[in-house]
Amino acid sequence: MSKSFHFNLLARDKRARAGILHTPHGDIPTPVFAPVGTQASVKAVTPSQLSDLGASLVLANTYHLYLRPGDELIAEMGGLHRFMGWQNPLLTDSGGFQVFSLKSVRQIDEDGVTFKSHIDGSTHRLTPEKSIATQENLGADIIMAFDECASPSDRTYNENAMMRTHTWAERCLKAKTRPDQVLFGIVQGGIFLDLRQSSAEFITSLDFPGYAIGGLSVGETKEEMHAVLDTVDGILPESKPRYLMGVGTLEDILNGVLRGIDIFDCVLPTRLARHNTVMTRTGRLNLINAAFAHDPTPIEESCNCYTCHNFSRAYLRHLIVAREMLAATLLSIHNLHMLIHFTQEIRQAVLENRLAHFTEDYYRS
Amino acid sequence: MSKSFHFNLLARDKRARAGILHTPHGDIPTPVFAPVGTQASVKAVTPSQLSDLGASLVLANTYHLYLRPGDELIAEMGGLHRFMGWQNPLLTDSGGFQVFSLKSVRQIDEDGVTFKSHIDGSTHRLTPEKSIATQENLGADIIMAFDECASPSDRTYNENAMMRTHTWAERCLKAKTRPDQVLFGIVQGGIFLDLRQSSAEFITSLDFPGYAIGGLSVGETKEEMHAVLDTVDGILPESKPRYLMGVGTLEDILNGVLRGIDIFDCVLPTRLARHNTVMTRTGRLNLINAAFAHDPTPIEESCNCYTCHNFSRAYLRHLIVAREMLAATLLSIHNLHMLIHFTQEIRQAVLENRLAHFTEDYYRS
Repeated sequence: MSKSFHFNLLARDKRARAGILHTPHGDIPTPVFAPVGTQASVKAVTPSQLSDLGASLVLANTYHLYLRPGDELIAEMGGLHRFMGWQNPLLTDSGGFQVFSLKSVRQIDEDGVTFKSHIDGSTHRLTPEKSIATQENLGADIIMAFDECASPSDRTYNENAMMRTHTWAERCLKAKTRPDQVLFGIVQGGIFLDLRQSSAEFITSLDFPGYAIGGLSVGETKEEMHAVLDTVDGILPESKPRYLMGVGTLEDILNGVLRGIDIFDCVLPTRLARHNTVMTRTGRLNLINAAFAHDPTPIEESCNCYTCHNFSRAYLRHLIVAREMLAATLLSIHNLHMLIHFTQEIRQAVLENRLAHFTEDYYRS
Repeated sequence: MSKSFHFNLLARDKRARAGILHTPHGDIPTPVFAPVGTQASVKAVTPSQLSDLGASLVLANTYHLYLRPGDELIAEMGGLHRFMGWQNPLLTDSGGFQVFSLKSVRQIDEDGVTFKSHIDGSTHRLTPEKSIATQENLGADIIMAFDECASPSDRTYNENAMMRTHTWAERCLKAKTRPDQVLFGIVQGGIFLDLRQSSAEFITSLDFPGYAIGGLSVGETKEEMHAVLDTVDGILPESKPRYLMGVGTLEDILNGVLRGIDIFDCVLPTRLARHNTVMTRTGRLNLINAAFAHDPTPIEESCNCYTCHNFSRAYLRHLIVAREMLAATLLSIHNLHMLIHFTQEIRQAVLENRLAHFTEDYYRS
């Protein structure tokens, strides 16, 4: 890691870890949940509201920003931090996950992938070198290696995708030039534990300052996800941060931390909010339900978020029924608070060596 | 005015006034611009953001809230302040303006008006007594007499509407029961100065704690609006607050204050924002314009709002083009700041007896 970056492991509680990742744009206390700002905006939430929520790391999607408004425009405007008004740490993904999710992928070869824009159908090509150049234009603190995320249960595909991911990881390392960014490598291999083991061994043989586990939370069972995390945990070096991409829910975050994960991100809290759904400690509520029309209570009595402090379920339902834009903002604030705050509580439990107790309490409630 | 209400006139600069209107939910420094929260929400803006903007008074629409979610539900939830999470002063209109604007008005008679809901076509009836009862359920600090707002240039219609408005004003005064609300009377009469004079004389003969001028900013010329304000100014008592309903723009607010007005409201700033348009000191910009794609400057260099402090025109245009909801929030914050802050500047100029100079500066820029 370069001078500006440093990962301090502060405490361990069995396999769970609590630390601080220092970056040029500030410190990230880990474990951490990162809200997703796909198009350089966490949907319906201002950077100031994100700060108030205690967010310390925000993710943006390279695929979307490459297409619109373009990474060169963002570089011209002083980089992503300045462009989106978020002066704290940022992470960009490589574009790989989005590109391989497109139905309009045209060609995958050893060199890269050709695809059509979901916006205007124009043809583009992404390679490891192009992904790094794009992420260097964006300028996030943490950037990701270009990888191929395969359907989790197709073994042959996963073997090939993993091999490509390994070659591409080496090319990404070579392509990287900016000293104020760190590049994380990504372990792939689907649900196949032997592939995950090879992948973790290969990727950790390269000197990345942090490691991600990709290709999970894409349709596999909880047991399969946990088995992959258990396999990888023993191979990833303790001294470096670990990032479980695209996860998730309260339960998945807790299970991830219990298996040694430090960083999480997910679109779920803001996406659910735009579909009138709020997360609680024990499940979800769809607030458009008529049962909430006369409900004077907040979403969650014990919640300290701005929304729960100021508004009743009856009001939130009114905003939804009346199609007021404020609904998405207030529901997003609550859902983001749930995940950010829950992850902070987990961190505190690790620091105080009482995560087993915390976990019992969580499952009892 | 009841004990909790008191209007202090602090300074005069020719006909312009600066004062403080004390209410049970706090003080309103006047002149003041009130953002409009039609459905108990200032669109795309949180109450906390409104506070940060320096908003001291917010308006809500009785017609909309009566229909959805219903004033009885809001009363059950503890009233409008608590329902919408705005603990500062609130004003509700009478429902008259909206009902008379509907294409589905069924019948207007001396007693009231029958209309169809724009939401579900159901039939409803609004009378002076019903309007007051509804506004008492909502519980705003300032409530308005039920009036008929006529097309401004039809003399016969205006004469009849004015007469009805006068009778209804007396009925509203009689119907009112809550001691923690003040009821303002409304002067009507279209663009006809003799009607405006009679109306102002009649309405001020009733002991209202404040007076509004209705039926302006609905299609008449600036000269016609100013002539009405000039006519009414000499008749309204100096010791009571004056409210110019539904106005408006920087220029209209300045012209209103110059003619003795204390309170303004308008949906314009938030409506323009939802149409990608921002207000500047000298005009308007539609930020979807490609000219702004690479523009690193804020909407207005001299503006101190959150949006101008943190975001470029290029970023705001990106949000608009990418259909991010944050665009409406950030543009609304800027537009509301423009009107609230401009009105505060006018107030300061009145307090310092330099409004003529301020006005010259405004028109020179």
